[in-house]
Amino acid sequence: MSVGNKDAFWMAKAIGLAKKGRFTTTPNPNVGCVIVKNGEIIGQGYHYKAGEPHAEVHALAEAGKNAQGATAYVTLEPCSHTGKTPPCAQALIEAKVARVVCAMTDPNPQVAGSGFNQLKSQGIEVEVGVLAGEAEAINRGFLKRMRAKSPFVQVKMASSLDGGTAMANGESQWITGREARQDVQRYRAQACAIVTGVGTVQADDPSLNVRLTGDSRQPDRIILDSTLTTPFTANLFTLPGKTIIVHSSQSSERIASFKAKDLELVYLPQSNGKRGVSLEAFMTWAGERYNHLWVEAGATLAGAFITEHYADEVVLYQAPVFLGATARPVIKEELANLADKLQFKVLDQRFVGQDVRWVLKPIAQ
Amino acid sequence: MSVGNKDAFWMAKAIGLAKKGRFTTTPNPNVGCVIVKNGEIIGQGYHYKAGEPHAEVHALAEAGKNAQGATAYVTLEPCSHTGKTPPCAQALIEAKVARVVCAMTDPNPQVAGSGFNQLKSQGIEVEVGVLAGEAEAINRGFLKRMRAKSPFVQVKMASSLDGGTAMANGESQWITGREARQDVQRYRAQACAIVTGVGTVQADDPSLNVRLTGDSRQPDRIILDSTLTTPFTANLFTLPGKTIIVHSSQSSERIASFKAKDLELVYLPQSNGKRGVSLEAFMTWAGERYNHLWVEAGATLAGAFITEHYADEVVLYQAPVFLGATARPVIKEELANLADKLQFKVLDQRFVGQDVRWVLKPIAQ
Repeated sequence: MSVGNKDAFWMAKAIGLAKKGRFTTTPNPNVGCVIVKNGEIIGQGYHYKAGEPHAEVHALAEAGKNAQGATAYVTLEPCSHTGKTPPCAQALIEAKVARVVCAMTDPNPQVAGSGFNQLKSQGIEVEVGVLAGEAEAINRGFLKRMRAKSPFVQVKMASSLDGGTAMANGESQWITGREARQDVQRYRAQACAIVTGVGTVQADDPSLNVRLTGDSRQPDRIILDSTLTTPFTANLFTLPGKTIIVHSSQSSERIASFKAKDLELVYLPQSNGKRGVSLEAFMTWAGERYNHLWVEAGATLAGAFITEHYADEVVLYQAPVFLGATARPVIKEELANLADKLQFKVLDQRFVGQDVRWVLKPIAQ
Repeated sequence: MSVGNKDAFWMAKAIGLAKKGRFTTTPNPNVGCVIVKNGEIIGQGYHYKAGEPHAEVHALAEAGKNAQGATAYVTLEPCSHTGKTPPCAQALIEAKVARVVCAMTDPNPQVAGSGFNQLKSQGIEVEVGVLAGEAEAINRGFLKRMRAKSPFVQVKMASSLDGGTAMANGESQWITGREARQDVQRYRAQACAIVTGVGTVQADDPSLNVRLTGDSRQPDRIILDSTLTTPFTANLFTLPGKTIIVHSSQSSERIASFKAKDLELVYLPQSNGKRGVSLEAFMTWAGERYNHLWVEAGATLAGAFITEHYADEVVLYQAPVFLGATARPVIKEELANLADKLQFKVLDQRFVGQDVRWVLKPIAQ
């Protein structure tokens, strides 16, 4: 192996470690670290949970004094600031590593190159950019929030092959299969919050929780409910985890009745000339606390996230059935001309049980 | 290799040869033959076109006197009757082959085991069933017509991911891409006839011809036009190949005006209580002359082939776009309850250019 290939090899190990935190690190990024000396790993670690030690700290603890003169491979620039834990750049300096290889700079304004500067100022060799694309991919939410102050948004949809989500009479259960629903669980578990509309709560009374075995965090559940009509009997209020209702109501009576409940109530303005909470205001609010939103809503709200260009990805499950010409459509938008069509780049497409899952990136028109 | 594996090996060669006739043999089946002696092919051939020699004849001609004592691998039972060419069973007997291995019995009532009986009566060892499934797959049209007196029907559809085929205003050109349209050409070329409805002729004025380079036969073009309103200015009348209009009209005036044109006019009854030619009557008529139909029609006719259970396969091209809630649907049927949904087995699913092609087998409800 050339030096470049060796670096990529060890960085791939670090990225593999980073992914182990994908269900738990929010709002922190996923980070992995391996410390290598004489062609062998002498320490490794990953960030598991906000408030707990960073990847580098775990890896340095395992390496001990042997870290002196070693190379540390880290998937993200080591932090230079004291947050809930001490700065990792300092820890690497104290451990006297000779070289630090990173996949990418941390866009967090509290870091953003200062971690590298600290290392270099102490004579440590620093290399940045090894497997940068792969490292971007494991932190899309964190990176988008840091760069754009807006969360990464995935919109889930499920339909028949002919674009129906339910019959005209409302029947809709089990259009997609068990494996697709289990796949949705893994997507939910990686999100910071699950977003739905009050219409879906009223029609389907969904749980919107994570039912995976093991140490699963419950993402916040956010209901967009502009006029505060969510029924207090909704199933999701009975489940562990936090529920947030985002509304635009001016009714002090309704506000008071919701404030009496065990939930967070957030006021945001309505869209100009449209029903419902402004998605622009919602995205700004959400960008203050969430990296990654998973939207499971009806055809109106899901469609709005796409047509108003807030969806980074659409995850569409298609069942191999036709529901016919009067079925309810997967998006509510009425597009007049062919030029108005919504176009997507297909990022991935595969069978999930008997259904097919498309991962689609909207193409800006 | 065991004897069984050797037989499968040579039969796979014969099937590969048979496929070379897939654009030309109609209404005859695709058949391939290899003659093997001492582990080597000494003669090979395939059926190219009705009226021309069968596969066995080509292979025996190549083998010459060396065929004596050899094994002939044939993808379909050798014929025992004198049609446009002399019987192949007799030719194999005269060539003194020692053994004949076939993939399957010919269901043609003029053969149906009598070819094997002729061979066995002359002391030739006969084995049947090697790669039978693969041999079935290359002659689905021929086999269905022989067994069910009805052609094999593929229904082509093209839609957006949300099941639209055109905007409400009728705009529809180029929803799927160039590669998908080229793929349709290969499907057309394998069919005996291309079926459409008068509505599609009026709306899109399609060519419905084969525009592949090389020796391409033009499948017949069949227009289902119950009231005889096809415009004589239609593009497809100007193209090489035969056009057949299937109607249910009682108007002697309209019939006379169509009879004056260079086309075949076929009267079939209407469905009970429905507009349009009876598909049951159409399938019976088509079963007398066609192995394989390729239906390229609008949402009403294409949908009827599926809901009336005449479609053996649906070939659906999906473009990665959404056309919105008011787009025209891919099938016109209005299904009331979820239990009415049309279910499919996915036989194949793959990218064709930027679009995805589904090959679907309707599941009888």
